[in-house]
Amino acid sequence: MASIDEQIRIISKGAEEIISIDDLKEKLKKSQETGKPLTVKLGLDPTAPDIHLGHAVVLRKIKQFQDLGHRAVIIIDDFTGMIGDPTGRSKTRKPLTRDEVIENARTYENQIFKILDREKTDVRFNSEWLSRFNFADVIELASKCTVARILERDDFQKRFHAHESIGVHEFFYPLMQGYDSVALKADVELGGTDQRFNILMGRNLQKDYGQESQVAIFMPILEGTDGVEKMSKSFGNYIGINEPPNDIYGKVMSIPDNMIIRYFELATDVHPDDLAKIKEALNSGNINPRDVKMRLVKRDNIVIPWM
Amino acid sequence: MASIDEQIRIISKGAEEIISIDDLKEKLKKSQETGKPLTVKLGLDPTAPDIHLGHAVVLRKIKQFQDLGHRAVIIIDDFTGMIGDPTGRSKTRKPLTRDEVIENARTYENQIFKILDREKTDVRFNSEWLSRFNFADVIELASKCTVARILERDDFQKRFHAHESIGVHEFFYPLMQGYDSVALKADVELGGTDQRFNILMGRNLQKDYGQESQVAIFMPILEGTDGVEKMSKSFGNYIGINEPPNDIYGKVMSIPDNMIIRYFELATDVHPDDLAKIKEALNSGNINPRDVKMRLVKRDNIVIPWM
Repeated sequence: MASIDEQIRIISKGAEEIISIDDLKEKLKKSQETGKPLTVKLGLDPTAPDIHLGHAVVLRKIKQFQDLGHRAVIIIDDFTGMIGDPTGRSKTRKPLTRDEVIENARTYENQIFKILDREKTDVRFNSEWLSRFNFADVIELASKCTVARILERDDFQKRFHAHESIGVHEFFYPLMQGYDSVALKADVELGGTDQRFNILMGRNLQKDYGQESQVAIFMPILEGTDGVEKMSKSFGNYIGINEPPNDIYGKVMSIPDNMIIRYFELATDVHPDDLAKIKEALNSGNINPRDVKMRLVKRDNIVIPWM
Repeated sequence: MASIDEQIRIISKGAEEIISIDDLKEKLKKSQETGKPLTVKLGLDPTAPDIHLGHAVVLRKIKQFQDLGHRAVIIIDDFTGMIGDPTGRSKTRKPLTRDEVIENARTYENQIFKILDREKTDVRFNSEWLSRFNFADVIELASKCTVARILERDDFQKRFHAHESIGVHEFFYPLMQGYDSVALKADVELGGTDQRFNILMGRNLQKDYGQESQVAIFMPILEGTDGVEKMSKSFGNYIGINEPPNDIYGKVMSIPDNMIIRYFELATDVHPDDLAKIKEALNSGNINPRDVKMRLVKRDNIVIPWM
């Protein structure tokens, strides 16, 4: 098993923020002593998008945890999915049927296991615990958080100050996501920086429910093949992980040179030592960036290990 | 059965506000046409205080509805009582056991049936419906109200602006009370003016759940025997409905003359026509206020009909 310091190095690669490194060290140490792998959580919406390399940034970080011997738990938020938004105002919260949820979960699995290690992954549905809540349980959950604290969340804050209406039920989405960490006793939760509030909520709730708080790891948002906008289907600058290998090859070769290191950092499992060497070679001018991109996409099968 | 106009006159006597008179007329008319009595709701805390004439103002108004042929439903909020306040911060929300709730309900019944007609009263516990809520039901209930709307409630508003913490769970107390009206399909809800927000919440929720909205009737706060402060045990100016008749007699005889009409209005069932005559007699100076007080307390057994 890798040393604690080596694990920290690998986990830190590309991460925007880890709250906190000390907690992470403590957990890794305990894991090493007890031989019990850490539980690394990732929450997924049940709407089953096509996963692209931007989404894959967190999956890849989780894969690195798995390679270090830890376990991933993917939470499919089917509970919220099946409730939907009772006001019908939110397009992303149209109620899904049980069948749709299962179908979407299958679509997810077909994609995420191109990156994750299936043997070290549990896929759980949060309806498993949330559907058992009664009113008293909900009141208890709600009591763990103040109104002011929830209104600090960026989007709520903006809407509140703009006098746009916020339904009381919307307060529960971060609370439910946070409770998932309690249900799992998660050691680590990963997410994009846009998930900051919700992931820290999990950290707080675990403490309130008498558990050790999870470590929060925030990954940056990957730029698309244009090197400017964030990778997104709507910007047409994405690389889907289900695309034909030749398309992926072509797209990777088209990224601007100043994105090469960024892609190695966020879209591959390359070791920090190798990353340093690649960086050095590029900076020295002794190597053709085209060759480095070739390596990015092909030699080590790094971007697309499933090719 | 009394005419609609006569019913409106009796119901309006002493009421501070009725929202709305038109809705009330409509409901009385329908009740008369169908022969179906109105359901008149009163919510009671499960903490079982000693009831005094101040509390009795709403009970007496409900009795007037009963005399007009309608039914009362007393809701004992045992659900909140049994949950308590999970934060343990609120002294009035210490969890009660099932036995305590039943004991308190009995104490209530011993007092309220000195005023209400037992034959025309149902006593219900709101745990009957609220304990059956699951998370999805709670989300649906919460979706009927915006954060901004709840923060309009006086006490929340003050605390929010003073940066005092408000637990998210506290938002549910008005929602639960409002939902009681939905569960009962209440036609009318009575309360003191301090219950304004919660009772109007019931009105809104009924509409959101596809029902006809209840009529809200707000009764003023009765002054104590000093004629200055509101009647309250802590001011020592109260008349408990369980006090010995001689004590009640003495206390009523001690009220200032300018309170006589107020007491007739809020603490008796005297008919508006008689009230007008009493008022006239007092104003003419042809009658000794002492004799009017005698009538208040004794002749018609009005204040204490159970003597």
